[in-house]
Amino acid sequence: MKIGILGGGQLARMLVESSYKYDPEFKILAKEENSPAGKIVREVITGDWNDEKCLELFAEGCDVVTLENEFIDYKKIEYIEKLGKKVYPSSGVIRLIQDKLVQKETICALGINVADFSSAENKEDIKNFAAAHGYPVVLKSRTMGYDGKGNYLVESEADIDEAYNSLSKRGKLMCESFIRFEKEIAVQAVRNPQGEIKIYPVVETIQKNHICHLVKASGELFGSLKEKVEAISVKILERLDYVGTLGIEMFLKDNDTIIVNELAPRVHNSGHYTIEGCFTSQFENHIRAVLSLPPGNTDMVIKSAVMINILGERDGKAEIKGLSGLLKHDNVYLHLYGKEETRKERKMGHITVLGEDLYDAVRTAEQCREAVDI
Amino acid sequence: MKIGILGGGQLARMLVESSYKYDPEFKILAKEENSPAGKIVREVITGDWNDEKCLELFAEGCDVVTLENEFIDYKKIEYIEKLGKKVYPSSGVIRLIQDKLVQKETICALGINVADFSSAENKEDIKNFAAAHGYPVVLKSRTMGYDGKGNYLVESEADIDEAYNSLSKRGKLMCESFIRFEKEIAVQAVRNPQGEIKIYPVVETIQKNHICHLVKASGELFGSLKEKVEAISVKILERLDYVGTLGIEMFLKDNDTIIVNELAPRVHNSGHYTIEGCFTSQFENHIRAVLSLPPGNTDMVIKSAVMINILGERDGKAEIKGLSGLLKHDNVYLHLYGKEETRKERKMGHITVLGEDLYDAVRTAEQCREAVDI
Repeated sequence: MKIGILGGGQLARMLVESSYKYDPEFKILAKEENSPAGKIVREVITGDWNDEKCLELFAEGCDVVTLENEFIDYKKIEYIEKLGKKVYPSSGVIRLIQDKLVQKETICALGINVADFSSAENKEDIKNFAAAHGYPVVLKSRTMGYDGKGNYLVESEADIDEAYNSLSKRGKLMCESFIRFEKEIAVQAVRNPQGEIKIYPVVETIQKNHICHLVKASGELFGSLKEKVEAISVKILERLDYVGTLGIEMFLKDNDTIIVNELAPRVHNSGHYTIEGCFTSQFENHIRAVLSLPPGNTDMVIKSAVMINILGERDGKAEIKGLSGLLKHDNVYLHLYGKEETRKERKMGHITVLGEDLYDAVRTAEQCREAVDI
Repeated sequence: MKIGILGGGQLARMLVESSYKYDPEFKILAKEENSPAGKIVREVITGDWNDEKCLELFAEGCDVVTLENEFIDYKKIEYIEKLGKKVYPSSGVIRLIQDKLVQKETICALGINVADFSSAENKEDIKNFAAAHGYPVVLKSRTMGYDGKGNYLVESEADIDEAYNSLSKRGKLMCESFIRFEKEIAVQAVRNPQGEIKIYPVVETIQKNHICHLVKASGELFGSLKEKVEAISVKILERLDYVGTLGIEMFLKDNDTIIVNELAPRVHNSGHYTIEGCFTSQFENHIRAVLSLPPGNTDMVIKSAVMINILGERDGKAEIKGLSGLLKHDNVYLHLYGKEETRKERKMGHITVLGEDLYDAVRTAEQCREAVDI
């Protein structure tokens, strides 16, 4: 069984690491040589996924194809499907998620809470949206946004010109109401082609500069929200006829109102803790789904888990320091992504801490992050 | 950091799988193309480790070298060391373990219980040993034995001719008293170059036809033996100045007498359950030791774990069947080794079951083994 993965980043790498035990072969399509995933598989196509010749080369010999990001145009995925290959999640799913306006419409149509939104074809649209819903307005690129890139917080009419001019270069835009949330929460949900579903615990995510900084997972943390989040997850998975792991980012407001913010049609940074923290990781479960196998147990193996990202702090050749100091702690796990160049705020790796007490685990995670340098 | 592994079997494969997260490069020396480990690394030397040219090619560029079996002559390991490479465990360790007579002498000299033993240069030696210690006598090849191969149970004088003639072709022999044990138990112990040691729980191993069939691990199982086994382990590790994971096979007699049977200077089949069953697996801890990192927590994540081997049942091309039936159980894990040919009694993979109750886990493991075919 040969699994093709579109993309060679850390998510692809962890998909591969988690599932060699099932003895699949992997074929990676990566933009550059020595990508994180490309370094640990034997078959790599280096090229551009917008190039159909390259897609053909990649798809050849694959029994099934999956992806690690939502940036490849759904039409390119359709192209692979037309070559006779199953792609999970499918082009149809990516079409509904890739464009954030279409995504919001899709979620909204399920009766799930989302922020007020509308398309923003021009500056007038933004002004009208603000008149109806008030400031601040979040102006967003409809495609290709991540880690805050492609978002602009419009606090008053005075910001509209700059916001529009800076973002409209990136393509079509949309407006959203700014949600004054208490917490950002997330969940990973997995579904296989047979429709079997498993859902991970709800976690809290802490962002710094719009990038995921820390994730807190604990069976007890959002126990009362579990049912609501699961109901939302199932609705979305089934509406999309989704196959694989889906990341769902949400806002929590007034302690029990859940507002879905964004979907990630792939394994997600908020679920990295599942590698050690759950009986089956989001990565393994994604591959199980792609292989039409039953999803594994998503329960936690211990009361609490905390994941902290290791972001680059300088530009240059990556070199990890402080490993021994980190690993002398029990139940602290390091994952390096094998990126050869470090850059400010680039995701270079992550640390997961398991423990009985969530707040101890958070403290240990913060200390451990301080102990390493890359 | 480039780690060379002598051997490309399933143990090497699981070493690789467990430690890509530290972003080492791996270089494998394997006898054949498409070895289990060779299939998941980018750099493979295919050749014979008795060929010094091949060892040179292999060692080139490695920062450190380790091994997955004790069959490579310690002089070949010395040869690699003379090329200026650190090998863990070292040629000195392998010299003391490789020859089972020398191994027994080494363990015995530490005041640790072993079966009565002596060398057997000829048939007369066997007769004399039996006269002193009684029948049955276990006649053993001093080197290259595994899974019962190289052992012969001499029940009376009438067996000596056949035993001697069949085994002496394999090289030098030794005699041991046959131990009427209650249970076979085992432990994995890990030590790094700085002398830091961690020891896994004591497990019970069930053999079928001299091949490991099933391993039972449970925090409670041998609680009363924990201290004794740990003391034995530490003595051996320190005497050998051992670096890496060491497997220790023991007999349990009269409920509290521990007799060391054999050492395996590597990760060991009795420790495969640690991948999911413990906070840090024997494989990861071996690589941590080889990289001079602190060993991780060897405690179990759950009360019980059971590992059952998947042995081939026919000769031919391997093809796994029954995966869905297996994976529909919660907390059941499959590891396939990627061997292209199945053979009767060949180790093709294993299943681990985690659970609160050991006997439930044993039942599930047996059922799951029945569910798959390879």
